[in-house]
Amino acid sequence: MKVAKNRRATGARSPSRRKTAKAAKAPSLPLSIGLLPNLLGYNIRRAEIALWRDFSRTVGEGEVRPALFSLMILVEANPGVAQIDIANQLDIDKATVVGLVHRLQQRQCVVCQQSTLDRRRQGIYLTERGQKELNKLRQEMLDHETRFTRLFSSQELAQLFALLRRIHP
Amino acid sequence: MKVAKNRRATGARSPSRRKTAKAAKAPSLPLSIGLLPNLLGYNIRRAEIALWRDFSRTVGEGEVRPALFSLMILVEANPGVAQIDIANQLDIDKATVVGLVHRLQQRQCVVCQQSTLDRRRQGIYLTERGQKELNKLRQEMLDHETRFTRLFSSQELAQLFALLRRIHP
Repeated sequence: MKVAKNRRATGARSPSRRKTAKAAKAPSLPLSIGLLPNLLGYNIRRAEIALWRDFSRTVGEGEVRPALFSLMILVEANPGVAQIDIANQLDIDKATVVGLVHRLQQRQCVVCQQSTLDRRRQGIYLTERGQKELNKLRQEMLDHETRFTRLFSSQELAQLFALLRRIHP
Repeated sequence: MKVAKNRRATGARSPSRRKTAKAAKAPSLPLSIGLLPNLLGYNIRRAEIALWRDFSRTVGEGEVRPALFSLMILVEANPGVAQIDIANQLDIDKATVVGLVHRLQQRQCVVCQQSTLDRRRQGIYLTERGQKELNKLRQEMLDHETRFTRLFSSQELAQLFALLRRIHP
């Protein structure tokens, strides 16, 4: 069955989803939801949607995706890092990283130049402006995190992390 | 900072990501990954990526998104369900549901007609073809699930579900 080429096709994560979701709430009959609540994938996805919704409302004025934040964190922790190493680390494709880096370059948040670690490679470095942006984003990100982590005791949270890491080893 | 309008902009979940990810693997220095591993959002997202990658390789010949599967399950369990109730149940926006239903109509997997539950509403019903497709998808979905749930004891899995449900109440 050919239905949707990819997730992008339906805009499931577009800002419009976030904006219309509230308006769409209406009294309705309780649905029978079949096997969904017993599926691991369903529960992970629902949790991710809840986190994504809060993230996009509160971090980077709704204009920053989690992958972009992660990329900036990696560049900060690894000055001169190569795009390919970012792609491998975040488990996203090279083309995506190229796109994100390009946007950050346009915003003058990073520069690409000959790596001091490996002169054959182009390395990515945060600019002063990028560092400032990241510091602001990090605080917003930590506030966002706290809204969810406070739902758990520290023991429960450690347990949740350990279980999730079995899924993404 | 205006960087990415939404997740779609970078194609993070496009099939091309899945195809190129393997080719992109190359020996590289271990990166310092800063605060990422201690973020709930990061761990949920990484787990979701791992599940999504396996799902898109093995369910519906790579052409079916999880949301579409969930929608078909809801229509099967609630014949005549309204689009708005699907949107509310799955926590996705109405426009996304309209798009998914439209695709399923084109594939003759569902029909929309006056609801037997509420005659003022249009209800969605699976066709015979849709039911057949769903039965095949469900089996593929359960095989996909098993590849992940077997990483856990039944007690651990129950615990993981309980913790995830606190995030998406």
